[in-house]
Amino acid sequence: MTDTLQMLHTAKAACPAAAALSCEEQNAALRAMAAALRRNTAAILAANALDVEAAKEKLGPVMVDRLLLNENRVESMAAGLEALCALPSPLGRVLAKHTRADGLRIEKIAVPLGVVAIIYESRPNVTSDAAALALKSGNVCVLKSGKEAHASAAAIVDALHEGLAACGLPPALINLVQDTTRAAANTLMTADGLVDLLIPRGGGGLIRACVENATVPCIQTGQGICHIFADRSADVQQAVKIITNAKTSRPSVCNAAEVLLVHRDIAPALLPAVREALVEQRIAAGLVPVELRLDAAAAALIEGTPAGEADFDTEFLDHILAVRVVEDVQAAIAHINAHSTHHSEAILTRNTRNAALFTRQVDSAAVYVNASTRFTDGGEFGLGCEMGISTQKLHARGPMGLAELTTYKYVIKGSGHIR
Amino acid sequence: MTDTLQMLHTAKAACPAAAALSCEEQNAALRAMAAALRRNTAAILAANALDVEAAKEKLGPVMVDRLLLNENRVESMAAGLEALCALPSPLGRVLAKHTRADGLRIEKIAVPLGVVAIIYESRPNVTSDAAALALKSGNVCVLKSGKEAHASAAAIVDALHEGLAACGLPPALINLVQDTTRAAANTLMTADGLVDLLIPRGGGGLIRACVENATVPCIQTGQGICHIFADRSADVQQAVKIITNAKTSRPSVCNAAEVLLVHRDIAPALLPAVREALVEQRIAAGLVPVELRLDAAAAALIEGTPAGEADFDTEFLDHILAVRVVEDVQAAIAHINAHSTHHSEAILTRNTRNAALFTRQVDSAAVYVNASTRFTDGGEFGLGCEMGISTQKLHARGPMGLAELTTYKYVIKGSGHIR
Repeated sequence: MTDTLQMLHTAKAACPAAAALSCEEQNAALRAMAAALRRNTAAILAANALDVEAAKEKLGPVMVDRLLLNENRVESMAAGLEALCALPSPLGRVLAKHTRADGLRIEKIAVPLGVVAIIYESRPNVTSDAAALALKSGNVCVLKSGKEAHASAAAIVDALHEGLAACGLPPALINLVQDTTRAAANTLMTADGLVDLLIPRGGGGLIRACVENATVPCIQTGQGICHIFADRSADVQQAVKIITNAKTSRPSVCNAAEVLLVHRDIAPALLPAVREALVEQRIAAGLVPVELRLDAAAAALIEGTPAGEADFDTEFLDHILAVRVVEDVQAAIAHINAHSTHHSEAILTRNTRNAALFTRQVDSAAVYVNASTRFTDGGEFGLGCEMGISTQKLHARGPMGLAELTTYKYVIKGSGHIR
Repeated sequence: MTDTLQMLHTAKAACPAAAALSCEEQNAALRAMAAALRRNTAAILAANALDVEAAKEKLGPVMVDRLLLNENRVESMAAGLEALCALPSPLGRVLAKHTRADGLRIEKIAVPLGVVAIIYESRPNVTSDAAALALKSGNVCVLKSGKEAHASAAAIVDALHEGLAACGLPPALINLVQDTTRAAANTLMTADGLVDLLIPRGGGGLIRACVENATVPCIQTGQGICHIFADRSADVQQAVKIITNAKTSRPSVCNAAEVLLVHRDIAPALLPAVREALVEQRIAAGLVPVELRLDAAAAALIEGTPAGEADFDTEFLDHILAVRVVEDVQAAIAHINAHSTHHSEAILTRNTRNAALFTRQVDSAAVYVNASTRFTDGGEFGLGCEMGISTQKLHARGPMGLAELTTYKYVIKGSGHIR
C-alpha cells in the first residue's frame, strides 16, 4: 500500500470523529488553528522562502507572486479561519420531514460527506482555507498541494495540527499528501470508497485530468469564460462601467469577463465608448490597456486586433477581451451556450422580456442582469465563504459554501413497521 | 458522427423547449402519452412478444418474466404517467434568496438538468417511467434499453411520441438510442457537454462500467447489500417480524435485507426464532425457505450453511440471508460501514443511545430504527415517484424523485452594480 493510500484509510477512519464534533468544538478548533498559524508565522515564512527560491528559477513573476507569503498573508489566513466561526453549522439540519399514515417517521438530515480530497496548485492559503471549510462541515480533508508550494503547505499543516492538538483533536482530521507526483493524484482520483468528493482547484489541465481519470465523485470548478451581452436597449454609460469592471477589476480570476457580445444596433454607439474606457483612458492613467480582439463587424467600428476563432474559447485571465457583434439576444444566447464554461454571464438591457429570456435560456451557474460578473463568489453571494466555484450541474453549481460540502441521509424511525 | 452522437446533439438542442413547458403543458403531455400507450397496447404487446420469444432461448425464467408485458402491465405504465400529473412541478422554486446592502438581488432557482441519459436493462416499464419523470422535471431524456427489451422499448417510445405529437410537442423530447451495442453506451458515458446526467439502472456490472468509464456526471443507483442489526435489547418477536419482512417480502429488489447481524447476548434467543420463521414456517406454508449462511458463532446456535467470506459482500437478490454474531453495536456499525453498499440498514433496539449512535455513524442513504429496510422507495418516502435509488452521496442520496432531477442556477439582478 502506498503512503497516499494509507493516508486515505487513516482519513476514512477519522470520519466519525470529525462528524461527531459539535459546532462549538469546531469553532474552538478553528480558533486554536488560527492562533497556531500566527504563532508559527516565522516557520511558515521560512518554508515559503524555500518554495519561492526554487520557483524563481522555473516560474514567471505572476506565479511566484501567487506562491509568496508574508506576515500579512499569514494573518489573513488566520483571520479567515476565525471568520468561519461566525457561520452557522451546515450539519444536522432537517431538510425534509414526512410522517406516514402508519406512523413511520422519515427525516432527511444534512450530514458530512466524509473524506473530501482537494487537489490544488500554488496558492498556499488554499491549504488553510480548504482545511477549515472541511472541518466546519464535519468532513476530513486530504490535501494535495502543488509541488512548488509543498514546503509552505507542510508548514501550514504543521501549524493546523498544533491547533487541533491544543483542542485534543487528532491530526488525522487534516491530511497533507506527501507524495508530490502525479501518482498520488491518480491514487486520489481512483480511491473508490475512500474519497467521497474530489475537488480539483486549478487550471484546465488539472480539471480535465480529474474528469477523465476520476472514478470517485468529482466536482469541476473554477474555469470561467464569462460573457457580457450588451443588448440593443442597454444604457451605454452603465454598460461601459459594467464591462470595465468585469474585465479589469481583477483579470486573473475566473469571474472576470473574457468575451463581449454586442447587439449590432448598439455597436456603433457602444464600441467606441468601450474602446475609450478600456484602452485610451487606461493608457492615459498609466494602467495596462486591454487588448481588444475583434470580429469583422466590430473591427469595422473600432481599432483592435483581429480575433481568431480560438479567442472565443479561451480563458485569457489577462487584459484581453474578445468582442463579437451579434444579430440579437437569441444569437447571443446561442453563442454563449456553445462557447461558455457555464460559469457567469450577464445581459445589459432595459428590455425585461429579453432579460427574462436570457436568464431562462443561458445555461450557466450565475446569470446576471445589469450587473458585473465579478460578483460570483461565495462571500459576495452571502454564503460567508467558498471552497470553489462549481461549473457543473450535479450537487453544487456556482459558489460552494459549507452547505455544498454536505450530503444528507434519511433517518427513519418506526415501532416494528413492515411493508 | 455516429447516430447516437447525432441523437445527443438533437436532444441538447431540444432542452430549451423542454425547459419552457409549463406544469400544465407537461401534465397534458403526460395524459396524452398515457392515452397513446393504452391505444397502442396491441402494438406494444406484439413487439414485446418478439423480445420474449428471443429471450426464452437465452435467459432464465426470472429474467423472461421481468421482460414480459401484458395488458395489465401496459395499463399500469399508463396509470403511472397519469399519477405524475398530481405531483407539483420541481421547477422554478426559489431555493434561496439574498438581497445585498447595495440592492443587488440574488436568487437561487431550481432548473432542469438538461439532457438526462438512462442506461437500463430488461424491464420495459422503465422506458415510460423514465421518460415521464424526465419530462415532468423539464429535462430531455436519452434512453438506452437493454438489447433484449429493445423492440418493446421502441414500441413504447413510438406511443409516447404519438402522445407528444397530439400536444404539438417534438419527438426530440424523448429519445431512444437505436444502437444496442456497447459502443452506444460508451458514447453516452463520454459525451461531455451533451449529457448532463447519466443514470445507470441495472446490475453491478453496468454500474461499475459507468463509474469507471464515464466522464459525464453519473449517479450510481440501486445496488443494495442491506443489513439488519438486532441489538441486545431488541424485542425478539418484533425483530423476527421485521427480519422476515425485509428478507422475504420481495427478495429480488435492492432494499431487501441480505445480511443479519445479531448481538451475541440476544443471539441464543433470537436466532432459533429467526430460523423458525424463515425456514420451518415457510416450508410448512409451502413457501421457498430462506437459506441461512451462518458464521461460526451463529452456526453454534442454529442449523444452516456455513458462510464464506464472500457471503457478507454479496447482493443475493434471492432467498438467502448471511448471518453473523457481533460483539456490540460498535462492531455492527464497523461491519456495515466496511461491507455495505450504503443503501439501507436497520437497527432493532429498545436502547435509544444505541439507536442514535447507529443512525449517526452508519454511512448509508437510509438508516432505520425498528422498521424494515423495504421502505426505501420514492413512493413510500412520499416523493410520489422515483428514477432510482442513489447509493452515492453527491447530488442525490436514496430515492431520486423529481427534485433530484433538477439543478439550480443563480439569477442576479442589478441596476449597474459593479464590484
